[in-house]
Amino acid sequence: MWAELSTCLDLDAGVIVGAPVVRRHLSDLAGCFADRAAYAALRAGEDPLLYTVSGVEAADGAGDLHYGLGVLFPGRVGGEYFMTKGHLHARRDAAEVYIGLRGEGCMLLEDEATGESRMEPLGQGRVVYVPGHAAHRTINTGRVPLVYIGVYPADAGHDYGAIAAKNFRMVVVERDGKPAMVARDGLNIQQ
Amino acid sequence: MWAELSTCLDLDAGVIVGAPVVRRHLSDLAGCFADRAAYAALRAGEDPLLYTVSGVEAADGAGDLHYGLGVLFPGRVGGEYFMTKGHLHARRDAAEVYIGLRGEGCMLLEDEATGESRMEPLGQGRVVYVPGHAAHRTINTGRVPLVYIGVYPADAGHDYGAIAAKNFRMVVVERDGKPAMVARDGLNIQQ
Repeated sequence: MWAELSTCLDLDAGVIVGAPVVRRHLSDLAGCFADRAAYAALRAGEDPLLYTVSGVEAADGAGDLHYGLGVLFPGRVGGEYFMTKGHLHARRDAAEVYIGLRGEGCMLLEDEATGESRMEPLGQGRVVYVPGHAAHRTINTGRVPLVYIGVYPADAGHDYGAIAAKNFRMVVVERDGKPAMVARDGLNIQQ
Repeated sequence: MWAELSTCLDLDAGVIVGAPVVRRHLSDLAGCFADRAAYAALRAGEDPLLYTVSGVEAADGAGDLHYGLGVLFPGRVGGEYFMTKGHLHARRDAAEVYIGLRGEGCMLLEDEATGESRMEPLGQGRVVYVPGHAAHRTINTGRVPLVYIGVYPADAGHDYGAIAAKNFRMVVVERDGKPAMVARDGLNIQQ
């Protein structure tokens, strides 16, 4: 007998109906943003909700898949856009497909071995393939919530520690009104 | 170096821009529809396009994923709605996640071992989890094209033969203006 196989997306509420929701606030992303002063200033005032992920784990066998709906709110910390913590998969060769449903943004990818980095557009009507061994972070470069679905092997797992320890080499900031990927090292701010 | 990681969905054209497209006409579904007379009559007149699938196979490693955009047109053959051929995965335990983007329809699922069948809603804002070992067929029960994305393990493979040989036990037909799943055996027509 199969369990529940069908779910309903409520894009206005930003959830998969009936699925558990994880909420990440600014305080959960300590150390992620390059501009420490801007982060501290924003933290002092409030602790805004940055994003939510609602996930479905229908089965856990070798060929199974999990999926989640992410909602990433618009905003900035200094020049840097609101973003997710970012992670590698615990099973390093596990890929992920991200499908943009609403809003405007990008994925920042960084190959764990080579450091190769990419900024790939993710927004309504865009799909990003995250290869194995790539740390990945979602970034909202627009003015409305960025809503997307991620699908990944059930045994992928999430490793937040490896990338948190060294952070991504690149950051995505606004330059002349547009998102640009620049080296964290080269930022002219106190980090 | 990564290859192309990002694609663009053109939902009006029904394609993933730049991806190869497979087109299935009525003649490709010989033997699928229950009502042979209705099928023959429709075949005599023309050979309508039933659906297209545009697919992306970014990588083929153990943890990789493939995805495709399906567009299934509205229509009927006798009482039965336009549908896909249906398949099992060659790697039987491989699951698939279907995400409905436009239109109205359902997935017909049949467990290969037990024959357990399900009709799960698939349309805009609906997601269907296809477990391993389940033959699955997409059905358009509405009046506009049903557009959806399917994501599956790169090594899933497609086995059309196993389910084509015996066909699905159940069919989805219109009953009192609504889709209903009924036993193929119990249909009061010449098959």
